Amino acid sequence: MVNYPSGINSKQKTTSFNNRGMSLETLLNRTNSYYLDKDIAVIYKKPTPIKIVKMAPKSEKIIEAYFEKHSTTDYNGVYKGKYIDFEAKSTMCKTAFPLSNFQKCQITHFQKIIIQKAVAFVIIEFASLQKYYLLPAQKLLSFIINNTRKSIPLKYIENNGYEIKISASIILDYLDIVKDLF
Amino acid sequence: MVNYPSGINSKQKTTSFNNRGMSLETLLNRTNSYYLDKDIAVIYKKPTPIKIVKMAPKSEKIIEAYFEKHSTTDYNGVYKGKYIDFEAKSTMCKTAFPLSNFQKCQITHFQKIIIQKAVAFVIIEFASLQKYYLLPAQKLLSFIINNTRKSIPLKYIENNGYEIKISASIILDYLDIVKDLF
Repeated sequence: MVNYPSGINSKQKTTSFNNRGMSLETLLNRTNSYYLDKDIAVIYKKPTPIKIVKMAPKSEKIIEAYFEKHSTTDYNGVYKGKYIDFEAKSTMCKTAFPLSNFQKCQITHFQKIIIQKAVAFVIIEFASLQKYYLLPAQKLLSFIINNTRKSIPLKYIENNGYEIKISASIILDYLDIVKDLF
Repeated sequence: MVNYPSGINSKQKTTSFNNRGMSLETLLNRTNSYYLDKDIAVIYKKPTPIKIVKMAPKSEKIIEAYFEKHSTTDYNGVYKGKYIDFEAKSTMCKTAFPLSNFQKCQITHFQKIIIQKAVAFVIIEFASLQKYYLLPAQKLLSFIINNTRKSIPLKYIENNGYEIKISASIILDYLDIVKDLF
């Protein structure tokens, strides 16, 4: 008996397990809601930082602001007492994942949290292949240290990461992999 | 030999250990920067969520937006592999801490992360007393469950929490307490 996340009607039970055109972010939000509902884990996407330039006079209204990039990662939370921290990225490339997707401060963040024994990783969507991988942050860092290439070959990700399959509940059940990582 | 956080000059060594008029948020940001610099822990304040109402046409400029309240807590991160999660609150009251400082969804969040074995707590500043306490989330929840009062007496916090002293480095060294909590 499969437990479906709230809001999913029974018609979808017969659907084959693909991403149904959902963006990686939508799929992960759905996955994290499922984990929260079922008391499996508490993992949130951090709010996007916004730089506020101007407020309306004598008001709570922001009238000029801009999006900023995260200096850390997109998602963090707790699973069985462990600190979980990851970044989610999507690429249209078919054979490699461009490292330009990461900012230097995100790499530094991974280094810092690995010292603290965080469970840290990247979820990479190869959108045109409809494939998802979990690559431990340690493997990402060792690739960067040992290579001068500007992208990580899919082969490296296949050999050093784990494919995540979309489950019957139409979620990207990455904790099914994480549970064996510590 | 005391290690001072970067940017603190040696003159401050002779200062007595008070909060030097710093707000609780400033003090905690300073503390977390210190932890980060020294590879003691990686703990961040989450960005304040902002509700975006309107963007300028064909632009990256936000022209109408409002602050929202956190549905979770202000701070989270990792310390020795453990997930750390806390809320920081300040009160001018001298004898009790008003529970109206918490939103219902924050209490639910504490309940959810305790199931996941998070190290969860509240840091409470009694501003007029210049005193700081760490109260484990479990003790906060059990007070709420077992009482109909609208504020937590200082006595309860003294008996069930831990006073945090401002350290020689002029930080609020809450991890000195947390390290004995798990």
